[in-house]
Amino acid sequence: MPNYENFPAANAKYVETFDKGSLPLPPSKKLIVVTCMDARVEPAGQLGINLGEAHVIRNAGGVAKEALRSIVISQRLLGTREIALFHHTGCGMLTFATPDLQGIVKGAAPDNAEVAKHVDAIDFLEFSNLEESVKSDVKFIQEHPLVLENTKVTGWIYEVETGKIKQVV
Amino acid sequence: MPNYENFPAANAKYVETFDKGSLPLPPSKKLIVVTCMDARVEPAGQLGINLGEAHVIRNAGGVAKEALRSIVISQRLLGTREIALFHHTGCGMLTFATPDLQGIVKGAAPDNAEVAKHVDAIDFLEFSNLEESVKSDVKFIQEHPLVLENTKVTGWIYEVETGKIKQVV
Repeated sequence: MPNYENFPAANAKYVETFDKGSLPLPPSKKLIVVTCMDARVEPAGQLGINLGEAHVIRNAGGVAKEALRSIVISQRLLGTREIALFHHTGCGMLTFATPDLQGIVKGAAPDNAEVAKHVDAIDFLEFSNLEESVKSDVKFIQEHPLVLENTKVTGWIYEVETGKIKQVV
Repeated sequence: MPNYENFPAANAKYVETFDKGSLPLPPSKKLIVVTCMDARVEPAGQLGINLGEAHVIRNAGGVAKEALRSIVISQRLLGTREIALFHHTGCGMLTFATPDLQGIVKGAAPDNAEVAKHVDAIDFLEFSNLEESVKSDVKFIQEHPLVLENTKVTGWIYEVETGKIKQVV
């Protein structure tokens, strides 16, 4: 059974006790969290963030570069002023390099020029050192001309083995 | 007080009852959820998804195009086979057009050629109709040559006013 068939029943339970229908659009804590799509990451619980408080941007790795469009929208239209960037232990982004993945995708569709063209155009933005990737992503945000000056930017590692966070920057 | 100063205490509480340290990297439900960064959206609770079960990709709007890099990594390296895409009522992406936001950013830094160059290069990927944006993003995923054939793709609207979900595709 596909997962989506379970959504309506689970959502009906959620709706039973839902009382947050009047929350405003701008995040009340003026906070952005950038983190990985990883299934073991759940920023709300892990950081004590309640509904309505923070924008949460998630992609493979928790990569700052890809979050930029969202950060600009969040800061300029919705008033956020602080950014917390998280990468995590055991991340898939530590396990491959872009040419490897391009090879896997092309190998699965041999002689398909369309697939090759598309996948060769993607930088998968992997990283090889967790602390360094947090530091360089924080630096990218701090120094980017489109990010508001005086934005408080912090960088963290989440440990999937223990549930603990560690501040890096 | 910046929000990040509250993270350690909130995280310490989370760690007290944390017992998920041995979850594997690949999502157990082979599911990707793509949704908006909006502070009122919380897919785990709203869809009944537990830790370790699904990749969650979030950006301004829940835009499929920007999720592509993450989707390829998720499918090819971590085995996911189903994608559920959510947009939501009251979304900020319905409230502006790219040239408006480019104008706001440039207006805040007059005569700054660096800012102008960067912001003019960004398509903010806004949309003007919620159902249509869900449909076109589902179509983008279904037809993209890098997405695995036989991927089950569904499209939904989450209602921030009621907590309810509605399937569109």
